Amino acid sequence: MQQTFRLVIDCPDQVGLVAAVSQFLADNQATIVEASHHTDSQLGRFFMRHEIKADTLNLSLENLRSAFAPIAESFSMNWKVSDSHQKQKVALLASHESHCLIDILHRWHSGELDCDIPCIIANHPQMKQFADWYKVPFHWVDFKNQDKAVAFAQVEALLDEYQADLTVLARFMQIVPDNLCQKLAGKAINIHHSFLPSFAGAKPYQQAYDRGVKLIGATCHYVTKDLDEGPIIEQEVIRISHSDSAADMVRKGKSCEKTALANGVRYHLQDRVIIHKNKTVVFA
Amino acid sequence: MQQTFRLVIDCPDQVGLVAAVSQFLADNQATIVEASHHTDSQLGRFFMRHEIKADTLNLSLENLRSAFAPIAESFSMNWKVSDSHQKQKVALLASHESHCLIDILHRWHSGELDCDIPCIIANHPQMKQFADWYKVPFHWVDFKNQDKAVAFAQVEALLDEYQADLTVLARFMQIVPDNLCQKLAGKAINIHHSFLPSFAGAKPYQQAYDRGVKLIGATCHYVTKDLDEGPIIEQEVIRISHSDSAADMVRKGKSCEKTALANGVRYHLQDRVIIHKNKTVVFA
Amino acid sequence: MQQTFRLVIDCPDQVGLVAAVSQFLADNQATIVEASHHTDSQLGRFFMRHEIKADTLNLSLENLRSAFAPIAESFSMNWKVSDSHQKQKVALLASHESHCLIDILHRWHSGELDCDIPCIIANHPQMKQFADWYKVPFHWVDFKNQDKAVAFAQVEALLDEYQADLTVLARFMQIVPDNLCQKLAGKAINIHHSFLPSFAGAKPYQQAYDRGVKLIGATCHYVTKDLDEGPIIEQEVIRISHSDSAADMVRKGKSCEKTALANGVRYHLQDRVIIHKNKTVVFA
Amino acid sequence: MQQTFRLVIDCPDQVGLVAAVSQFLADNQATIVEASHHTDSQLGRFFMRHEIKADTLNLSLENLRSAFAPIAESFSMNWKVSDSHQKQKVALLASHESHCLIDILHRWHSGELDCDIPCIIANHPQMKQFADWYKVPFHWVDFKNQDKAVAFAQVEALLDEYQADLTVLARFMQIVPDNLCQKLAGKAINIHHSFLPSFAGAKPYQQAYDRGVKLIGATCHYVTKDLDEGPIIEQEVIRISHSDSAADMVRKGKSCEKTALANGVRYHLQDRVIIHKNKTVVFA
Repeated sequence: MQQTFRLVIDCPDQVGLVAAVSQFLADNQATIVEASHHTDSQLGRFFMRHEIKADTLNLSLENLRSAFAPIAESFSMNWKVSDSHQKQKVALLASHESHCLIDILHRWHSGELDCDIPCIIANHPQMKQFADWYKVPFHWVDFKNQDKAVAFAQVEALLDEYQADLTVLARFMQIVPDNLCQKLAGKAINIHHSFLPSFAGAKPYQQAYDRGVKLIGATCHYVTKDLDEGPIIEQEVIRISHSDSAADMVRKGKSCEKTALANGVRYHLQDRVIIHKNKTVVFA
Repeated sequence: MQQTFRLVIDCPDQVGLVAAVSQFLADNQATIVEASHHTDSQLGRFFMRHEIKADTLNLSLENLRSAFAPIAESFSMNWKVSDSHQKQKVALLASHESHCLIDILHRWHSGELDCDIPCIIANHPQMKQFADWYKVPFHWVDFKNQDKAVAFAQVEALLDEYQADLTVLARFMQIVPDNLCQKLAGKAINIHHSFLPSFAGAKPYQQAYDRGVKLIGATCHYVTKDLDEGPIIEQEVIRISHSDSAADMVRKGKSCEKTALANGVRYHLQDRVIIHKNKTVVFA
Repeated sequence: MQQTFRLVIDCPDQVGLVAAVSQFLADNQATIVEASHHTDSQLGRFFMRHEIKADTLNLSLENLRSAFAPIAESFSMNWKVSDSHQKQKVALLASHESHCLIDILHRWHSGELDCDIPCIIANHPQMKQFADWYKVPFHWVDFKNQDKAVAFAQVEALLDEYQADLTVLARFMQIVPDNLCQKLAGKAINIHHSFLPSFAGAKPYQQAYDRGVKLIGATCHYVTKDLDEGPIIEQEVIRISHSDSAADMVRKGKSCEKTALANGVRYHLQDRVIIHKNKTVVFA
Repeated sequence: MQQTFRLVIDCPDQVGLVAAVSQFLADNQATIVEASHHTDSQLGRFFMRHEIKADTLNLSLENLRSAFAPIAESFSMNWKVSDSHQKQKVALLASHESHCLIDILHRWHSGELDCDIPCIIANHPQMKQFADWYKVPFHWVDFKNQDKAVAFAQVEALLDEYQADLTVLARFMQIVPDNLCQKLAGKAINIHHSFLPSFAGAKPYQQAYDRGVKLIGATCHYVTKDLDEGPIIEQEVIRISHSDSAADMVRKGKSCEKTALANGVRYHLQDRVIIHKNKTVVFA
């Protein structure tokens, strides 16, 4: 895949912002592959993402960063430049449900998700068989016979060891403790099996069945200390009816979960998501 | 349109039920246009709807009812037989938003909704212009300068006077008092502008905006005394993104509202909905 | 609604393009409400739309145009600047089906579609009732008792007389002659009741029924001399099953038709559509 | 999973049909899990599927068949009774694209698809790695260095050897010869990567890109000798825009392909599909 640099910015809105950025890019001969802008007029805030062909730029990545820094400062920007060839390390956390885990693994294996997967961590040992096939190191962490705090300390140590850039909770089903949520802020993605804010918490399909809704869904969001309350990246829904049993709902829901999670992760890996307060701008 | 009779049943599930009903229909020469069955195995309950060609039956409607009564009794059925040529009287309640009102009126006027519309009742007088065009009696009820209980008493008197079989709250935006909810149980349909149970109550689009969801929707449900908690008939959703302003969300949401309400009302008018506890079976 | 100017551009892709445009806007103090870019790397072509707050600009519309012309020329741009307060005149053509006509009229009447509607032209006189209510001049053109070329000459004369900027064929059901298609190129929008390219031509619902598809749809496209082959602006689909009768398909299809047409017209009116060869870029 | 028998019938419509079948079931104490009916009034044909709890029936499967035969004959029924515990053997044909193959394998492995998979046949050897993990016998058939007729003779011999009840072409990408199509009539399912009848034949995504459609899709259908013309079981679509590259379209399309194929196969395995002429009734 061609190498691109991604310049992602959010800052207070003001006149001259786009001109300054695009003049900078033009001055350095950057060919723009994709440019996305969003002005939130309620907040007076501006969001921007440029993807540029690396080989057209007459600057190295490092020099690009240092050359852009003064502009960024003058407009009070939150910003980053990332290199598409520097693959992010994505750690996968799983439990006993395999559908999301395998879906992510297959998309990665077939080249659809452009990242490295340094490890799979699960609280059920049978996930090892999938890890082995994909030749990804597997770690079982016992959440049953030891204190959860101890188990999460082991998870955290593994994430540190593998230097995970992103942690994906592929139906992990354990409530992440506050301190770890804070450490992973903006770098941990969860899939919840309902169209939030409906049916937060445990057993969303049962809740949906009990309420008699005609649609079920899934929500991909960043992990925060408030359970199922983090910034939403992507949601999917599917129609159900009275004739759908609990098993049918689970089956249909899995399809939503896989799609929402895969899209959310891809958007994140391509630096298409900007978190602002408790919401996201997604340049899909 | 050809005349049909609709036999709608729910009862405890047991062997021989379908045989008894279909033997009864066959004995009376009924040609079945449409037959729908549902067994709720968790509840052990059976739901059934038959639509039969009236002119193939060798019984009048009245005789059909009396002939079927013993079967119904022996299986402890809730049941009814309705005649497609006996149009239901549908009273429309509206406020200042016209999109749902007009959508229902146009579907009725063009023959898509097979019913009579004896009156439109609104708490904003400007709805009269639409009523006039469609030649439907219009009643303005003042909810601003008089007590709400008094206003609702006027609404109730009008529903009684026009002998409404069904009351449709086409974005009526007033909380119906408990006693009227109970009187209209199973005979009043509301459209709520969110995918319930998310964003019940006031200003659902603002709630959706604040939460940063990626889908908004609408829910058509029976009115009960617990606000936005009644049995759901139909739901619609539509995708939104960060670039959708509040106005965009309202526009997209209106489309969901119209579709969900029109479908819900049509299902009800065609006796396709069976309410059981707080859920519905919808033989769509 | 706040006044905006919309600068819409397409041209060969090259470095410095965005910088030149955004520098121009910044130099003239323009606050950008919305900016959209698209590079078609296969074609080497660039598409761009800016919507700017009129009152922040230190130029009149006329001066904006003359000031921008040299930049446009240097980059070989197709371009235009439009003023949101200069309402486009939209002539509606209809036949005997009213659903699309009324939908457009209601969206216009309620302020969702920001345009003028100077006239409705139909080949069935009963559409007059709707025109009257909305106080829009109505013209019946007889397509039955006179030659079609004569009838179309009358339509053309009316479009000229009312100085229509856009002509919307709201299920007009007559094949527009080549010369008129050419005259209206990029300024006439049709709704076809199938998901093109499936089921072009006559009776698409019957074709869909005969083929046994599980989805039906509608396509909003620009009119060209090749029937149902023009650039597509928007498409909608809806699920059907074996249990949907021809009447059900028509009913469901109408919902797709209304939505696709309304969206397509709105995109056009807001200068969100750029036609290039036989395709569109839609900055939705 | 509980054992059920499925009685699937289609025949000319006539009064007394349902009564005869349901009386037969009641007389033999069958508890009905699910009953579906459809009358095609244009064709005067009736379609019916019953799923009954095997252990409530006072007849063996064999006796059920012989007891029902006279009823079937008297109503000129096409019919079958199948046993949910007699797993169908599903042979998978694949080429070099793995997404549909793996999706089917994972759904089978996780218990969602209730069948046996006796073999995978592919014209690219690298599919063996997946077959190995799932412990399914793998056969590579060379379509490149030998005549296609010879290659297909090898495929046919393998299908015979493994006694395949159903053959699934999981993006097999080879045109099946007429004689094999006829032999597999109603027992071979293909996934085509467009919403048929749009873009039949080769390179549908390229065709879609060239036409500029705003939706792409996938179609699951029975294989017939007329390429991409067989009875459709299921279709899926997804929205695209000008900003979707060819690679994006492939990615989005794959999601449709997997869902449509998995649903189509599941419906077939559960005897929910009745083929009549070139269309299907699907009791989903």
